[in-house]
Amino acid sequence: MVADVGEQELVERILEKLGPADGGVRLGPGDDAAVLSIGGSVVLTTDSQHEGVHYRPEWIAPDRLGRRSIAVNASDLGAMGARPRGFLVALALPAGTELDWVLNLAGGLREGAERFGASILGGDVAATLDRVSINVTAVGEIDEGAEPVERGGAAAGTGGFVTGWPGRAAVGRRLLQAGGPSSSACEACVEAFLDPQPPVAFGGLAARRGLVGAMIDISDGLAIDLGRMCSASGVGARLEAAHLVADPVLGAAAAELSLDPMDLVLGGGEDYELLCSVPDECAAAFRALAEEKGIEVRDVGRFVAAAEGVTLVRDGHVEPVAADGWDHFA
Amino acid sequence: MVADVGEQELVERILEKLGPADGGVRLGPGDDAAVLSIGGSVVLTTDSQHEGVHYRPEWIAPDRLGRRSIAVNASDLGAMGARPRGFLVALALPAGTELDWVLNLAGGLREGAERFGASILGGDVAATLDRVSINVTAVGEIDEGAEPVERGGAAAGTGGFVTGWPGRAAVGRRLLQAGGPSSSACEACVEAFLDPQPPVAFGGLAARRGLVGAMIDISDGLAIDLGRMCSASGVGARLEAAHLVADPVLGAAAAELSLDPMDLVLGGGEDYELLCSVPDECAAAFRALAEEKGIEVRDVGRFVAAAEGVTLVRDGHVEPVAADGWDHFA
Repeated sequence: MVADVGEQELVERILEKLGPADGGVRLGPGDDAAVLSIGGSVVLTTDSQHEGVHYRPEWIAPDRLGRRSIAVNASDLGAMGARPRGFLVALALPAGTELDWVLNLAGGLREGAERFGASILGGDVAATLDRVSINVTAVGEIDEGAEPVERGGAAAGTGGFVTGWPGRAAVGRRLLQAGGPSSSACEACVEAFLDPQPPVAFGGLAARRGLVGAMIDISDGLAIDLGRMCSASGVGARLEAAHLVADPVLGAAAAELSLDPMDLVLGGGEDYELLCSVPDECAAAFRALAEEKGIEVRDVGRFVAAAEGVTLVRDGHVEPVAADGWDHFA
Repeated sequence: MVADVGEQELVERILEKLGPADGGVRLGPGDDAAVLSIGGSVVLTTDSQHEGVHYRPEWIAPDRLGRRSIAVNASDLGAMGARPRGFLVALALPAGTELDWVLNLAGGLREGAERFGASILGGDVAATLDRVSINVTAVGEIDEGAEPVERGGAAAGTGGFVTGWPGRAAVGRRLLQAGGPSSSACEACVEAFLDPQPPVAFGGLAARRGLVGAMIDISDGLAIDLGRMCSASGVGARLEAAHLVADPVLGAAAAELSLDPMDLVLGGGEDYELLCSVPDECAAAFRALAEEKGIEVRDVGRFVAAAEGVTLVRDGHVEPVAADGWDHFA
């Protein structure tokens, strides 16, 4: 366990696993801080994975946990249209943590960063009394002269598109928490929760090609994040129920668990995917880019005037959508 | 408590306390990520404060804890010669945490950032099962064309200088842990632990004026951090015992607790101060800058050839210095 090797050796062993920082990194791990050359503006976001809250150790192997910890942060860079440049990682470990577990986690962090064309820039290791926590700060870049894609840029009269398969991760989480039916649909949902694949490069390209007016990561739940986008943009939105629950895998898994797929899509959370406002004249190019990059995108409705609020059209009826989502403290 | 207000309102209330990000910040808290214009290179470091490990809630009021959380990170920016630009904060809070406590913490984070001429850029709030943790990522800048001050730049034949009063924080921590004698010397040590004042602006100025060959933050303990600097620089060092224990406050407090002040200076840790390699031709300007900025600096010895190792000259005898310091897992 890590108490046997001591902090100094632990850090050295972790650094071996992390590998060198490269690609415009002037100074990687090993000094008081990392130094990075940035051409345009730097984009920064931070998020933590706490044992017992965000995951349980029996759910997920450490290499996968490392990749996941990186992915959930990279997702927010993608939502700004930024290019990932590197990640800082602050680990908190109980003294009894197995060394191999930590080194496999470090290997996963490295793989996670490489998946987005970036590296681990540095970090910190400290002891905690009982549970592991993994804090990641993601560092991205937008080109000089380019604008970040804010959540407040959605205009009435543009289309709303969602990437990936929202709802699956929430089913996966429930299956891990409670056990329960197992089928290929359920397994796909567990996979979606454990190994999110945020469309970061796609978000950056869509931004640089000017195809999106606004983007937001929907990991708190589509309804709450759509509400945030509408509120920041001063618009409303009309969602099409049939488009939201068009995922046959989610449908099958939800049926097995007697859950309403609509609830999962709107309020499940943990989907590291993008909600994008796309002007009609850009929709064809947006879809073509998604196809080229192998990213699933679905038109889920339209942004409308603020006075209309956020509604869902189901079977010809219009109903309001509550901006509910994942609340850590609920 | 925070469970009563829910995550959305909690975040809004915290954001009010944090105030707007300013000074070249293109996008502060409230979107998926923060966006910052950087003229030269970006400097990044991260560190966490875990309840029960780094502090106990009964030791420190939340506003002070906020300032401390910022200061310990700013210290690493100073050690690179970087100018602080902002801080990201990831808070993990048990659901039963009092709202006022959190808001006072947020106020302290803001004050802490302002102390270094910077602001809070963004962050994250999540629940934990039991204890608070506060992760901060500090973001700094070095001018275009300037070099960061690395720990590997110490040359044999240069002087070794330390800022502040190393050893006091370690006494302060022991007093808080164990109670014990109280005197003005002891109170000064408790203050040094709870409210570190890293010489960040001084480090930046010393770097920009070319007065230092190497700098390192000595928060893991002077001996271990000196060992790191020597190892990275390929040099040795000869410390002068009389210079290390010249602090009368530390002497008085250590005597009351029957501790050896030398052990505290070399291995105590928690001193958010700088060890600097200063060429002799720069020493006068280095001292003058310190005096101008109100920073205590002391000459503690010299860097020598690697073959001499790291030694301490005490009463005419030369003894080796073990690179011991704070080990989280010991």
